Amino acid sequence: MTNLSKAIDALKAFRDERDWAQFHDSKNLALALSIEAAELNELFLWSKNPELPLEKQHRLKEELADILAYALLLADKNGLDPVEIVLDKIQLNTEKYPIEKSKGSANKYTEL
Amino acid sequence: MTNLSKAIDALKAFRDERDWAQFHDSKNLALALSIEAAELNELFLWSKNPELPLEKQHRLKEELADILAYALLLADKNGLDPVEIVLDKIQLNTEKYPIEKSKGSANKYTEL
Amino acid sequence: MTNLSKAIDALKAFRDERDWAQFHDSKNLALALSIEAAELNELFLWSKNPELPLEKQHRLKEELADILAYALLLADKNGLDPVEIVLDKIQLNTEKYPIEKSKGSANKYTEL
Amino acid sequence: MTNLSKAIDALKAFRDERDWAQFHDSKNLALALSIEAAELNELFLWSKNPELPLEKQHRLKEELADILAYALLLADKNGLDPVEIVLDKIQLNTEKYPIEKSKGSANKYTEL
Repeated sequence: MTNLSKAIDALKAFRDERDWAQFHDSKNLALALSIEAAELNELFLWSKNPELPLEKQHRLKEELADILAYALLLADKNGLDPVEIVLDKIQLNTEKYPIEKSKGSANKYTEL
Repeated sequence: MTNLSKAIDALKAFRDERDWAQFHDSKNLALALSIEAAELNELFLWSKNPELPLEKQHRLKEELADILAYALLLADKNGLDPVEIVLDKIQLNTEKYPIEKSKGSANKYTEL
Repeated sequence: MTNLSKAIDALKAFRDERDWAQFHDSKNLALALSIEAAELNELFLWSKNPELPLEKQHRLKEELADILAYALLLADKNGLDPVEIVLDKIQLNTEKYPIEKSKGSANKYTEL
Repeated sequence: MTNLSKAIDALKAFRDERDWAQFHDSKNLALALSIEAAELNELFLWSKNPELPLEKQHRLKEELADILAYALLLADKNGLDPVEIVLDKIQLNTEKYPIEKSKGSANKYTEL
């Protein structure tokens, strides 16, 4: 695994070379992220197969990269460490979804 | 920065302890991600301030963590390295948005 | 079918009695609509059945109503007649998706 | 106002001429709706103006038409009358947001 900080630094350099930080308030970053999430979902629309055919894998890769990019920029703007917040959330979910009650069931899982 | 692999491993352990991999096809993971993205956006809805007040920061942290979690699980399921795909996308965008043409302008930026 | 104008008038009366028009700029109405769309999608998340069980039908009804409400308010704010714009779009799509090329195929359909 | 039933009939005729009902399960219709909602939101992304310039109004018209089209098809598939469900929801919200407590305030409004 290459280093996550390297990706964050590259994203910020890309942004700053274009003077785009002025557009990147948190509300717009969140909106951009959800638009990319919709483009990701579009790859699966109307298909009976919940996995992508090989010829669409490069689009999955690109849409997922856009989502991660905006998530990392939004975390950075709000002083959050992406890895720490994921680990903290797993901790919360461990309490919320005890293994014995959650095993094999999608009930309440939608509220994750 | 703590290690990203550690977060991915923790996410997969959490999932497997609950036998939830059966629900995690790529289409549903993408859908789950976009639902979390909407919950993130809801924090900013109706507000005139594009940044969050302090008392909502913990919710930003949690929604962003959920988004990252699903993005990491979806990348893992499709054999993608999260850091590599972000770096590759920056490469693509560097060609698509040359500095001299993009500087300070949000034009065409929406197609990022 | 009861009258659509009656619903639009009721939505505007509800809004104005609460002095909420001040929050209803087009950007926020569009954002609110997409958040309700995500809540609608959440009803289907993780399920293997693409139709809803009876006990979730009332939630479909409510989420769809919220979506329609924001769509009608956004149309009204921008001087658009909801029925006319749907009929105009069908006209456009009739040219874009000729029957002989589109019949039974979901190809390119995602770009509808 | 032209008649809503006319739009619904035209949507179903368009769908049936192309034999597309086979793709229109409720889960995919809901997903399609949320993707169109994201395309609507994209019109507002990065802009400081929450209203659209004249040259983007035709796109608002088209995206809103797509959203309404999927909402009407989804209502029809689930035996719901679009006007009735909006009127019923206004009734519910009237109880949930009493005028005296809600006037001029966006508090809790996000939970509409």
